[in-house]
Amino acid sequence: MSWKDNLIKIDAYVAGEQPDKKDFIKLNANENPYPPSPEVIKAINGFDGSCLKKYPSANAVGLVKTLAEYHGLKPENVFAGNGTDDVLSLCFRAFFNSGKPIMFPDITYSFNTVWCEILNIPYEQIRVDENFNINPNDYKRENGGVVIANPNAPTSVGGDLDFLRVILDNNKNSVVIVDEAYVDFGGITAIPLLKEYENLVITRTFSKSRSLAGMRLGYAMGSPDAISAVYAAKDSMNSYPVDSVAQAVGIASIKDEKYFRETIAKVINTRNYLTEKMREIGFKVLESSANFIFAEHKTLPAKEIFEYLKSKDIYVRWFNKPRIDNYLRITIGTDEEINALLSALKEKIQ
Amino acid sequence: MSWKDNLIKIDAYVAGEQPDKKDFIKLNANENPYPPSPEVIKAINGFDGSCLKKYPSANAVGLVKTLAEYHGLKPENVFAGNGTDDVLSLCFRAFFNSGKPIMFPDITYSFNTVWCEILNIPYEQIRVDENFNINPNDYKRENGGVVIANPNAPTSVGGDLDFLRVILDNNKNSVVIVDEAYVDFGGITAIPLLKEYENLVITRTFSKSRSLAGMRLGYAMGSPDAISAVYAAKDSMNSYPVDSVAQAVGIASIKDEKYFRETIAKVINTRNYLTEKMREIGFKVLESSANFIFAEHKTLPAKEIFEYLKSKDIYVRWFNKPRIDNYLRITIGTDEEINALLSALKEKIQ
Repeated sequence: MSWKDNLIKIDAYVAGEQPDKKDFIKLNANENPYPPSPEVIKAINGFDGSCLKKYPSANAVGLVKTLAEYHGLKPENVFAGNGTDDVLSLCFRAFFNSGKPIMFPDITYSFNTVWCEILNIPYEQIRVDENFNINPNDYKRENGGVVIANPNAPTSVGGDLDFLRVILDNNKNSVVIVDEAYVDFGGITAIPLLKEYENLVITRTFSKSRSLAGMRLGYAMGSPDAISAVYAAKDSMNSYPVDSVAQAVGIASIKDEKYFRETIAKVINTRNYLTEKMREIGFKVLESSANFIFAEHKTLPAKEIFEYLKSKDIYVRWFNKPRIDNYLRITIGTDEEINALLSALKEKIQ
Repeated sequence: MSWKDNLIKIDAYVAGEQPDKKDFIKLNANENPYPPSPEVIKAINGFDGSCLKKYPSANAVGLVKTLAEYHGLKPENVFAGNGTDDVLSLCFRAFFNSGKPIMFPDITYSFNTVWCEILNIPYEQIRVDENFNINPNDYKRENGGVVIANPNAPTSVGGDLDFLRVILDNNKNSVVIVDEAYVDFGGITAIPLLKEYENLVITRTFSKSRSLAGMRLGYAMGSPDAISAVYAAKDSMNSYPVDSVAQAVGIASIKDEKYFRETIAKVINTRNYLTEKMREIGFKVLESSANFIFAEHKTLPAKEIFEYLKSKDIYVRWFNKPRIDNYLRITIGTDEEINALLSALKEKIQ
């Protein structure tokens, strides 16, 4: 027997490619093509580095306060963590302890299943329909919790308040997590429903609409009882706090609403333009409420287009998975990047 | 039944106090009293914030390369993460899958037991002797792994290479983790043993000797097989990468060796001074290889001294735990802070 026999055995996770070369167009990780607010850059470049000798505010008090004010909530309604992945995994740990299966769509953020397996949470994946719509009436059976990404990923399809109400009304005895990673790009937020549903928890990220993928910042909103449980989950595993620079960055980002709105408007404009142009060359493009589109071509296989674009140094995302393997997920870049993509597509298709 | 019935149930973790008031002396979290290197401050204040729109280098490639060169290792020997807690929890996940109990001292870093419970790893706590020494021959029975903090916390006691060799020679079939969070303050590093023992993994933090508690940076060193398993553990749970600012900060810190050595020398000098002065007023102070001391008074109970110091706005750490509840853990502050502590102690004792 060797020590090597007891090493973890897993298949490596395959993330979107990050080629080493410089001149390529990266539309495969749903990053924002525009930099973070100038206020964020000022916050970093004026940061008092000497304070780093001390541990950060354990519960990111200043950031939580800023987020609460921004959303019209109280600090006890908000938990801040190191990106949505951190926040979601703590939520799973905090809420899904009934032993009953939790429910989420079969096509959604792929780490739901990972966390369930790590935390031994049983789960059921509910089939979305052929247009990738989630039927809220499917979420009616007994369960240990519900997780809905709204807008959903990688499909880009969003649901409205009525849709969310059906799910919430059917699930008063378990926590319903609504992951709003992409909501700022035209989705409908569940925040107004927080007043009515104590068991609703909303998660958000700074990575997409706030151009801060490099920083790792996310948060959850919910009733004080729900948010307390997230803190308890964090404390139970000594999960580390948001670092001091990230806390300052988050506050600066939230305070620059004008830049935020302008950036989002640009992304949405480019998305609408790309959608239209791709439809003109034979793509079915789902109606997107996110900073990416999900599209299939009427004749050319997605994999072939994916490989072709890669050969042209344009990286989009293709998932080799049942039901979606003829689709491409394309992040909205700058107009220049999107025009380069469209030229390449036209060259291939015509 | 309510959704609240399924919330996580745990006792809240009690960290060292962080009073809200301003003027107090904080010697309870083993933070460094000196700021990080001026090079670190430059790295932050000159950081190109626009790059934050992209995700960080997933495996912190630049930081890993810098750390490897610094320690005379190769990049495949190094894993960088978000502080020692992150790195250690991934190591536990990566290495301790045998089903056999892992072994660590009964008095050591308190989160070993937390991770074992979260990850369902059985464990045995091996009694340290009455002087808080770890007897390496106690780590000889069949086990699933060994974790030794060297120097140990909260005792401050360090072991030498012979001590480590005994443990490693007795444990060739499981991974031996040596947590060197405090080693820079005069401990003996196990790095030279990496050449001989493929199953040795060393963890380090930037929080203490590099004055970067506010940043959350740590790393592990080991054989390529061991380090690959840590990457696999990280990938398996989508553990988020070190953020882009933290990567730049880590590199800048490592490159300023002169400042690092000077800061450590100051802390060690103050520690030696404090040790001597406390012994003069009736304390038994363990021989420390760390940036804190562990001390008990010959007549006054630790709790009484702890409360008294708190009333004087001086915060040290007292653990209400068997075997160590008559000891105080005191972090080395600036000379000024330590003199204030000594004055207060003298006032109480004489």
